[in-house]
Amino acid sequence: MKKLTVVKLGGNAIDDAAMLEKFLEQFAKIPGAKILVHGGGKIATSIGKKLGIVSTMHNGRRVTSEQTLDVITMVYAGLLNKKIVAALQAIGCNALGLCGADGNLILAEKRSPVPIDFGFVGDSVAVNRQLLIHMLAEGYVPVIAPLTHDGKGQLLNTNADTIASVIASSLAKSFEAELIFAFEKAGVFENPEDENSLLDSLSHDAFRLLQHSGSIHSGMLPKLNAGYAALRNNVSKVTVKHLHALHEEKYTQLVL
Amino acid sequence: MKKLTVVKLGGNAIDDAAMLEKFLEQFAKIPGAKILVHGGGKIATSIGKKLGIVSTMHNGRRVTSEQTLDVITMVYAGLLNKKIVAALQAIGCNALGLCGADGNLILAEKRSPVPIDFGFVGDSVAVNRQLLIHMLAEGYVPVIAPLTHDGKGQLLNTNADTIASVIASSLAKSFEAELIFAFEKAGVFENPEDENSLLDSLSHDAFRLLQHSGSIHSGMLPKLNAGYAALRNNVSKVTVKHLHALHEEKYTQLVL
Repeated sequence: MKKLTVVKLGGNAIDDAAMLEKFLEQFAKIPGAKILVHGGGKIATSIGKKLGIVSTMHNGRRVTSEQTLDVITMVYAGLLNKKIVAALQAIGCNALGLCGADGNLILAEKRSPVPIDFGFVGDSVAVNRQLLIHMLAEGYVPVIAPLTHDGKGQLLNTNADTIASVIASSLAKSFEAELIFAFEKAGVFENPEDENSLLDSLSHDAFRLLQHSGSIHSGMLPKLNAGYAALRNNVSKVTVKHLHALHEEKYTQLVL
Repeated sequence: MKKLTVVKLGGNAIDDAAMLEKFLEQFAKIPGAKILVHGGGKIATSIGKKLGIVSTMHNGRRVTSEQTLDVITMVYAGLLNKKIVAALQAIGCNALGLCGADGNLILAEKRSPVPIDFGFVGDSVAVNRQLLIHMLAEGYVPVIAPLTHDGKGQLLNTNADTIASVIASSLAKSFEAELIFAFEKAGVFENPEDENSLLDSLSHDAFRLLQHSGSIHSGMLPKLNAGYAALRNNVSKVTVKHLHALHEEKYTQLVL
């Protein structure tokens, strides 16, 4: 089977032009078929503020109001997606930007408002894998913004880690798929305070122990859960690594 | 040859949800291969104002500063493009949004700053027609936002009428291509004050006379010039019609 690499770019690197450029250079050098899924960084928050949009929070999690969704659509699918595409085009990578509504790439369901109404947030239910297979066959590099749609005209905000996981999973029958979560850290640390405690590999059991002890928390939880889901769906390899170490042998590999 | 319809949606209809919805319903009913090119409406201006971006004008024409380009990228390629795509998906039209940077769809050249520097404005130099041919063959309906790129990482603001014209022209060898400029009026009027003076057809010579007499001016000029350029490039039929009369026999047809 042909190899496919799906990279999720997370963290705030997307707000830093120099960090982003260095990442894109490394991404462009990945041989063979590849897909980039990007998050949103903090720029959506600052633009939302300037536009006078007040974010509502529920237990520390943002509620996606209609206005917030508009800002996210502008910033993720517009500004960031197209800047990344143009930058990749400049270094010989035939990038093509998509969100989940484009070509019905990711159909999602609005999350139930019970017990907590998070607004226009969606959980993916189906991926149009044929669209990706055709694009990859033609040599295009899909660059995916973390938005989905419900098929009834409504765009939905969807977690980028989850999108990367379902995209890689949907293609695991056609490719030997690798999923990389790239962000500002070198991987998963046994003790977040100790730089020397990088874990070469992390089993699902060990992950649950570290979660209970509090070593792994907040943003790492959805990332790692999305990673293990991909492994259960026949993705060959899932790693967490620094966004500037895509080609280095220093990372944490998730194992079931 | 197979038929292809390229529709340019112009004017301010894009800011009016009800007008836009009615247009999209008609667009979705066009049989066979089709492409939608949309303009930007006034929402970019209002969002730019809220973000504190001051537009510089030169002889009544807007200069596209870096900040203005960011707003245009957010609004055209993000908010409007994805809302249109999601709305078309909801009515059975497999829309897929693109800007000129995606898949190197429209390579452009930044306009010379001499004699007047209009900033980040581009004139298209090449269309990746194979990308469109493949998408159309797979049943996708490309929805194109009026942005191009220079291949060196820079996005550029490009007139949507011109984009519609070069897109239709690029496909005229592979399809029997029709180009429709859809906007708020029923077509071209001999006397803009007289509703009964709609022209069934308008030759290039007659157009130049009406331009000299002042009957045709401002926004209509680039539209009609783009239309005649498409005819010269073997597009079979070019019409100007009301955005809610796509399937009616009431329009102005341009002829060379």
